[in-house]
Amino acid sequence: MKYRKAILVIDMQRDFVEPGSPVCVAGAKATLPALARFLDAGRRAGWCVVYIIRSHHPSGADAEIFRRPLFETGQPVCAEGTPGAEICREIAPGKDDFIVVKQRFDGFFRTGLETLLRGLGVEEVYITGTQYPNCVRATAVGALERDFNTIVVTDCCSASDEETARANIADMRRMSVRCVASDDIFPDV
Amino acid sequence: MKYRKAILVIDMQRDFVEPGSPVCVAGAKATLPALARFLDAGRRAGWCVVYIIRSHHPSGADAEIFRRPLFETGQPVCAEGTPGAEICREIAPGKDDFIVVKQRFDGFFRTGLETLLRGLGVEEVYITGTQYPNCVRATAVGALERDFNTIVVTDCCSASDEETARANIADMRRMSVRCVASDDIFPDV
Repeated sequence: MKYRKAILVIDMQRDFVEPGSPVCVAGAKATLPALARFLDAGRRAGWCVVYIIRSHHPSGADAEIFRRPLFETGQPVCAEGTPGAEICREIAPGKDDFIVVKQRFDGFFRTGLETLLRGLGVEEVYITGTQYPNCVRATAVGALERDFNTIVVTDCCSASDEETARANIADMRRMSVRCVASDDIFPDV
Repeated sequence: MKYRKAILVIDMQRDFVEPGSPVCVAGAKATLPALARFLDAGRRAGWCVVYIIRSHHPSGADAEIFRRPLFETGQPVCAEGTPGAEICREIAPGKDDFIVVKQRFDGFFRTGLETLLRGLGVEEVYITGTQYPNCVRATAVGALERDFNTIVVTDCCSASDEETARANIADMRRMSVRCVASDDIFPDV
């Protein structure tokens, strides 16, 4: 089983996407249709898809220090087994997709993501998900640091506002990350 | 030898600071006086100082893929043993300071930085150096991911332009990184 290209889907879980959650990213829900189309096109092209998701202990013991107050006040973030931790139904993983669990911003940080990608033969990663300044960018930097050819799919990523998205895209372009829309990658979709 | 607080000085080497170098960061040189004062104040307060520097093989074999063309055209970046790899004289390390060598943006990535800081008992890191969108921010995220109390010292960090600095400070604040000027930390300096 070898794949040269992988789509990484970051943190597209109900707690980050559905309005009403204390950690909802305003722009995330609007990206679901484009992301669903991009994932289908990628699978048809023979690329692999890796969902990178958060899963925290309900106590918050393994969460970032700055998030623990949410857990302590009854608003756990992506707590294991809760509806908020579920991947959004519109982009649910298929049977051949992979799932990697993380506890911090960068999908490579203390996870098996690099081992998996190397094992699959992946050289190029297409980053999607939420949100631009935190997990999207940290994972893009993590991929760049490991010499993966790194592409951010702009209409499949989101932030709390457009200005933040634009500033992060500008920074990432200057560090050699390609930032392109999904129809530049799959023009027929 | 125990220290609760550490100052991290990132990439303040001639290649990144001195005008004329192909990778000079426009704002870096102007931070040297504030950084020198901050380091002196930190040492007097009993904090440790860790210089995080790049050192690459002259061939560029261990450099980021996007930087290798510079090496191949006779413009190596922080090549081992060259003047460009030297730490700026104005902020030269003292005899009790530490030096950690890195090859990527994040000072924690495949280095002994975390081992050193844990060994020293450090809980709080004050990040200085260059530049905001790349090594400063990646190291701040690396510190945050490892649950260090993370502070960015704004007048001791730099970028190619003010807008980039401001946007990165705004993003980091939203991820709970404290971003403050050196005279808020040492008012008497």
